[in-house]
Amino acid sequence: PSSRPVSRSEWAVRSSFMAKNTLNPIRQIVDGMKLEPNPEKPMIALSIGDPTIFKNLSPPAEAVDAIIQAVKSKRYDGYAPSTGIPTAREAVAQYTSRPEAPITAKDVILTSGASHAVEMCISVLCDRGTNLLIPCPGFSIYKTIACSLGIECRSYRLQPESDWEVDLDHMASLIDQDTAAIVLNNPSNPCGSVYSREHLVDILELADYFKVPIIADEIYDNLVFPGHTFHPLATLTETVPILSCNGLTKKFICPGWRMGWITIHDRDDIFQAEIRPGLNSLSQRILGPNALVQGALASILTSVPQAFFDNIIRTIETNAVMAFEAMKRIPGLTPIMPAGAMYIMTRVNMECFPGFQGNDLTFTSQLVNEESVFCLPGQCFDYPGYFRIVLTLPEDKMREALTRISDFCLRHYVPSTSYVEDQEN
Amino acid sequence: PSSRPVSRSEWAVRSSFMAKNTLNPIRQIVDGMKLEPNPEKPMIALSIGDPTIFKNLSPPAEAVDAIIQAVKSKRYDGYAPSTGIPTAREAVAQYTSRPEAPITAKDVILTSGASHAVEMCISVLCDRGTNLLIPCPGFSIYKTIACSLGIECRSYRLQPESDWEVDLDHMASLIDQDTAAIVLNNPSNPCGSVYSREHLVDILELADYFKVPIIADEIYDNLVFPGHTFHPLATLTETVPILSCNGLTKKFICPGWRMGWITIHDRDDIFQAEIRPGLNSLSQRILGPNALVQGALASILTSVPQAFFDNIIRTIETNAVMAFEAMKRIPGLTPIMPAGAMYIMTRVNMECFPGFQGNDLTFTSQLVNEESVFCLPGQCFDYPGYFRIVLTLPEDKMREALTRISDFCLRHYVPSTSYVEDQEN
Ligand SMILES: Cc1ncc(COP(=O)(O)O)c(C=O)c1O
Ligand SMILES: Cc1ncc(COP(=O)(O)O)c(C=O)c1O
Repeated sequence: PSSRPVSRSEWAVRSSFMAKNTLNPIRQIVDGMKLEPNPEKPMIALSIGDPTIFKNLSPPAEAVDAIIQAVKSKRYDGYAPSTGIPTAREAVAQYTSRPEAPITAKDVILTSGASHAVEMCISVLCDRGTNLLIPCPGFSIYKTIACSLGIECRSYRLQPESDWEVDLDHMASLIDQDTAAIVLNNPSNPCGSVYSREHLVDILELADYFKVPIIADEIYDNLVFPGHTFHPLATLTETVPILSCNGLTKKFICPGWRMGWITIHDRDDIFQAEIRPGLNSLSQRILGPNALVQGALASILTSVPQAFFDNIIRTIETNAVMAFEAMKRIPGLTPIMPAGAMYIMTRVNMECFPGFQGNDLTFTSQLVNEESVFCLPGQCFDYPGYFRIVLTLPEDKMREALTRISDFCLRHYVPSTSYVEDQEN
Repeated sequence: PSSRPVSRSEWAVRSSFMAKNTLNPIRQIVDGMKLEPNPEKPMIALSIGDPTIFKNLSPPAEAVDAIIQAVKSKRYDGYAPSTGIPTAREAVAQYTSRPEAPITAKDVILTSGASHAVEMCISVLCDRGTNLLIPCPGFSIYKTIACSLGIECRSYRLQPESDWEVDLDHMASLIDQDTAAIVLNNPSNPCGSVYSREHLVDILELADYFKVPIIADEIYDNLVFPGHTFHPLATLTETVPILSCNGLTKKFICPGWRMGWITIHDRDDIFQAEIRPGLNSLSQRILGPNALVQGALASILTSVPQAFFDNIIRTIETNAVMAFEAMKRIPGLTPIMPAGAMYIMTRVNMECFPGFQGNDLTFTSQLVNEESVFCLPGQCFDYPGYFRIVLTLPEDKMREALTRISDFCLRHYVPSTSYVEDQEN
């Protein structure tokens, strides 16, 4: 014992550093907003990245059947190996493997959703005293996990004016000897961007130059609009070691099933000595994801017809085009057309809405209070001055929401001199 | 940036402190053993705490149906709140609440198995620089989690000679100002002990005196033999704040389903300021357990007839009595009769087996090599000189395993003078 036993006179139970530093900005920001939806208008929540909530999309029948078969088979009630059932890992390997980035079952670790995959990747690569590069704007979980572990986050700029491409000079300027990894999210939440092969190669060259491994969050990989192509990051490099995070959540419309995975891409065995054993060890903390879904996984990944995905993509793209076209015409808003994922980001030109005193949180909460439409403020992605809209809803709801956003903006819009000049020229 | 950007010339990717320190002793010890089962005898693995592996026990039909209904309903495909679906939390609250320890849904947090519950409890209460009291012998996960977080573990002695009761003086001697929590596992893995009300009250008094909260791992709560009574720890105190860990895993024979929970027992709001918010925050890291099982939980907890549990307990007790009686008669072994859970611990009097040079790992691996019976060495529970046998197997297999253990011991037994005298008196 480091000191003598003591009887304390009062209870005083403190939470840990990790508990105090596991912060969810979305929860914090949204809870801090005064939201009082207009009782005369039914609420349209464009804020939640859950494709099931509007009931227009649901998991494929093949996947539902596969789970029912797995439950009935009684073969998946016991403990699975903590990295996953071999046949399920094999199924993910086959689903993911490409000639340019071949993998086998041993390169797959099953996780409880992509969140858990991200948590494990950050946990294995980063430590107190190291830093992690994350995209800005970006999905909040990277920062949540890193901060909770005492890891420094450095945000690299994405450039809205060039389809959210990474500002490579800025990224390079953030890297130092203590940089443990770069998180790259492609296709992106919240941006909806899908990077070109050339841009990805540029990023890989930078990683290769500085010898920094990449955590590639590719959960939206096949939610890409026609005319655009998703390139799995690992297919474009033979040198940079990559941990890719993925899962069923978005493309199979089943966030509640909590099935994700990590694929390890490591041609030169850079992850061999420490990172593979480390991931194996970390997987033993909670003993892997639900085994019933694991039992169904091979069937889910092979039996769902392409038409299922085409329908989802059609819904998202139709809404994207509708939202983009509508918001382009709303004075004070600048939408940025996405190429995939399930979101659109829109800039709010705050000078045009002087009533909100430059505060975009006031803008989004007032939009709820007047029009019962909730767009997620950009601050939730470390990106004030923008809002994010989810695109998985039924078309008529999207149309209605856009009309209300338009009404709201027109009501609060005050033309600035420069803007008027622009329009007149 | 804390230093100038650098291009490294070599890849050198190191794993984190957490990854390096997430150590599973069972895996390490078992992997280190040279196991070559006798090809002439079918293997009987008495080592794995998974009640499904022998196929004689399986989840109740009501639970299987409840999951199928949940999948078919399409109501549980979306994200659940990260602490759990309200109706499922409510169901756990009703299942757990006692007049002496009343709780409601807000006191329940659903987790991905009891392992995740334990992980969250340790993570929220303990920090680097604090220490955690854990039982010895004890289930390995407490140490695994604590070490990975840089928390010091202090093992308090359980006393085999008095039904594995805690050595209270020893426990008290380990507590100091930096003691963040005590882990109590009742009924116990590996001991199978079920503590009396009086002993639990003594432990609570100690915790109250030192003002140290308790993490009560009560996952084996209803696997108790007739004539013994399980007392939920929280029902015996009005002052000591308790986080209790539990789940479906053992009593509903479904480890693969990964459904566990924490119940918060805190009459005096000692956990109010920091621990409850901390647990809420931590639950957001992986967004809770599989929602399909959550959707089935209310039905699972209310619809399974008592006969289902009676049958499991009968199996375990029959095997416990058989194993105890058989091993009592084997020279050199001293079994300790359990009162619940699903294990029996047996002392190996190593002096009687001089061929193994006092090394109990050699004893258990040689038992595999000669008789194809695998008993888990006590070292896996920080308790050399003992082995643990699982009791959930079919009776005929148990009988066969005991015959082989007996044959093995008789073959290697060398009577010591004192032992012979004992027998002759
Ligand atoms: C970029 C990104 N990564 C990971 C996740 C987490 O996915 P899961 O629900 O599988 O944990 C999300 C969810 O919104 C996401 O947008
Ligand atoms: C004492 C104890 N606690 C917790 C667990 C973990 O249970 P779960 O499989 O629900 O994570 C076990 C499993 O063996 C156990 O013996």
